[in-house]
Amino acid sequence: MNQPLRLGVAGLGTVGASVARILARNGEAIAAKAGREIVLAGACARDRSRDRGVDLSRVAWHDDPVALARDPGIDCVVELIGGEEGAARACVEAALAAGKPVVTANKALLARHGLALARLAEERGVALAFEASSAGGVPVVKALREALAGNRVRRVYGILNGTCNYILSRMEAEGLSFAECLADAQRLGYAEADPTFDVEGFDTAHKLSILTSLAFGVALDSEAIYVEGISKIAPLDLAMAKELGYRVKLLGVAERTKTGIEQRVHPTMVPRTSAIAQVMGVTNAVTIDADAVGELTLIGPGAGGEATASAVIADIVDVAAGHVRPAFGMPAGRLERLERAPMQRHEGGYYIRLSVFDRPGSAAGIATRMAQGDISLESIIQHRARSADVDPTGRSGTPVPVVLITYATTEAAIREALARIHADGLVAEPPQVIRIERD
Amino acid sequence: MNQPLRLGVAGLGTVGASVARILARNGEAIAAKAGREIVLAGACARDRSRDRGVDLSRVAWHDDPVALARDPGIDCVVELIGGEEGAARACVEAALAAGKPVVTANKALLARHGLALARLAEERGVALAFEASSAGGVPVVKALREALAGNRVRRVYGILNGTCNYILSRMEAEGLSFAECLADAQRLGYAEADPTFDVEGFDTAHKLSILTSLAFGVALDSEAIYVEGISKIAPLDLAMAKELGYRVKLLGVAERTKTGIEQRVHPTMVPRTSAIAQVMGVTNAVTIDADAVGELTLIGPGAGGEATASAVIADIVDVAAGHVRPAFGMPAGRLERLERAPMQRHEGGYYIRLSVFDRPGSAAGIATRMAQGDISLESIIQHRARSADVDPTGRSGTPVPVVLITYATTEAAIREALARIHADGLVAEPPQVIRIERD
Repeated sequence: MNQPLRLGVAGLGTVGASVARILARNGEAIAAKAGREIVLAGACARDRSRDRGVDLSRVAWHDDPVALARDPGIDCVVELIGGEEGAARACVEAALAAGKPVVTANKALLARHGLALARLAEERGVALAFEASSAGGVPVVKALREALAGNRVRRVYGILNGTCNYILSRMEAEGLSFAECLADAQRLGYAEADPTFDVEGFDTAHKLSILTSLAFGVALDSEAIYVEGISKIAPLDLAMAKELGYRVKLLGVAERTKTGIEQRVHPTMVPRTSAIAQVMGVTNAVTIDADAVGELTLIGPGAGGEATASAVIADIVDVAAGHVRPAFGMPAGRLERLERAPMQRHEGGYYIRLSVFDRPGSAAGIATRMAQGDISLESIIQHRARSADVDPTGRSGTPVPVVLITYATTEAAIREALARIHADGLVAEPPQVIRIERD
Repeated sequence: MNQPLRLGVAGLGTVGASVARILARNGEAIAAKAGREIVLAGACARDRSRDRGVDLSRVAWHDDPVALARDPGIDCVVELIGGEEGAARACVEAALAAGKPVVTANKALLARHGLALARLAEERGVALAFEASSAGGVPVVKALREALAGNRVRRVYGILNGTCNYILSRMEAEGLSFAECLADAQRLGYAEADPTFDVEGFDTAHKLSILTSLAFGVALDSEAIYVEGISKIAPLDLAMAKELGYRVKLLGVAERTKTGIEQRVHPTMVPRTSAIAQVMGVTNAVTIDADAVGELTLIGPGAGGEATASAVIADIVDVAAGHVRPAFGMPAGRLERLERAPMQRHEGGYYIRLSVFDRPGSAAGIATRMAQGDISLESIIQHRARSADVDPTGRSGTPVPVVLITYATTEAAIREALARIHADGLVAEPPQVIRIERD
């Protein structure tokens, strides 16, 4: 058997501690699979004394992740610090510059600097591996980069953020508000103290930009993603979705179109009977639609220390076995520039919930504006206002919810029609717009 | 870029022709991912003149697959002949003996000779790759061997035979008999002229034996699998399953138990709301339950030329990139002997359909025998016989269906109780027994 692979782990939080524990627990079988022993030789963490449930007495501690990366006693650096700049970036760059392979779970870093880091890794002939960055324990990076290497991908989409899926699952099941479910998610450790990054869709966008690069052979461009989060979703929308046979999920979608690659992150109504609608709680799911394989779906834990560590260790074993693939599937110089496609005609149509002043002519005004935009309506649903909301005189025009379901149309047409409806003074609040996927 | 990889494809049927077409269609991107061009240099097929939708004019044709394997103009052999002996085995052995990597989709060959072939490949330091053998286009081999390398697997189970899943899906949806659906499957090309291999569970067993070896690090032992097919499933069973909140699927299950590895293939009632119950038609699905990742599910096409070729090409790209892993995840000498565990206590309980002579005392007799076997009954369902079946005298004892649902118990207890009920002369036909999985 070959020399052991000496790991330096920067960041011993939940994931890092799990990596250490799994190596201790399953080390013998891992060594048999990797063809060599894998040793946790060095680490860098704020708190050295914390009990992480594993013997770290033989680990060389560093205060500085860059010093860890440069330590000649370290063969491979595992970056679990997080963040797109600062210590994480410095650590990864130092390791690659020193000709050491890097394993990272850092999607923010990759979304921002992935291409430059891939170039650096290539120059030094070492691996830059990041299975854990995109869907936690779900091996979607390996699936796109290796298992589907023969395919031309048409579309990749999925539920990539466990926090959002947990919140939407609970909102629907219990009829609770977004704020209530977010508070619960924070209490349970599923959401950060500042949840913006998760709930506004940015985390999903970072992950999507990585999957887009792997799927379509293009350079990462997370700026080219339309991003909309779940914080404005109301329990009423989830109830209406149910009534209409849908369920709301925050999806990341990347699709090859005639004009380029369309990338978008937004709440989406999916048919309640679809496989993706069954994915509840913190679970992630990714579907890849490609020319040879057809449709492949992977479902599993999108977060959590042990599940994420499972992906980190898969990368470490690849490194130990000497399997260096170009980070994004092909040499960085071969990745095409991402042609940003505008959000195209949306075949599934739109769910639009308006808060309409209950006055004579309101409905006609709305229908006229939609017709002027060439938007065909499949249905208009107006539930009777609760009696307390009704103005018996019929003059004040208390706002009542009106839901429109459109047939296929474009984002631009929808935006323009809604702007006109707003300008006409027909609605009391900004409209709620949710795209529908019907297949 | 390196020298091209020259492929010799033995067998140009549906899958082989798809491999050739995909290489022609997506060759440039595949070369970028593999780091070298991949060329279809040689082939062996019964019919050279058939139009396969791809230019084969520069292919060196061989009559004998062994000669193809030994052709010095071939670097890597792709075996798509099929069958556990004969030409397929000779071709694979000749290629490995000549120090050439082999890619195969042949589960029968692997189930029977996989360990010996893995040893031979190891001796010669070449790859024996078989992603396409276990679930068509679903990359479960790579998932088990690489993506879950850090995990200790507890259980792997799934729908591994598209023919059976198609038949069960149609039987349930349309209330048709097994024979009617089989005939349709044959007409549509989903089932062979001799369907025994598929419908009696042997194909699933071959695939399961491969997954078991990869999942648990044990030597293949397809003899150690309990196998039961779907040919005895009646529309009534599917209707009863629906009434009880279940759906019937042919599952292959391998599980680590205290006494060894339990492997079984049999029709199973799964909750209708479970993810696996949603898998309809020829689609395959595999769930892996492991210590670090938790539960990971892969869903995709289990058969079909293009989907299977997608898996074949993934293996070819691994070979081209020089990534040789031991065939079953670790060196053949490290694979443990499979300790065959007896079918254990079945926590989900059993569905038992008896054809009971409708005589006084029958029900009491059955209940007594179950109680003597310490088998607790959750429910007894006896639908009123249709009037035409009823003997108005009550003497002849026309058989009527009676369904028992048990709580957790053992196979042995069930078998013994049913033998006694049979000996008591209470039933007209052999009982139908279907295991239930509740979680």
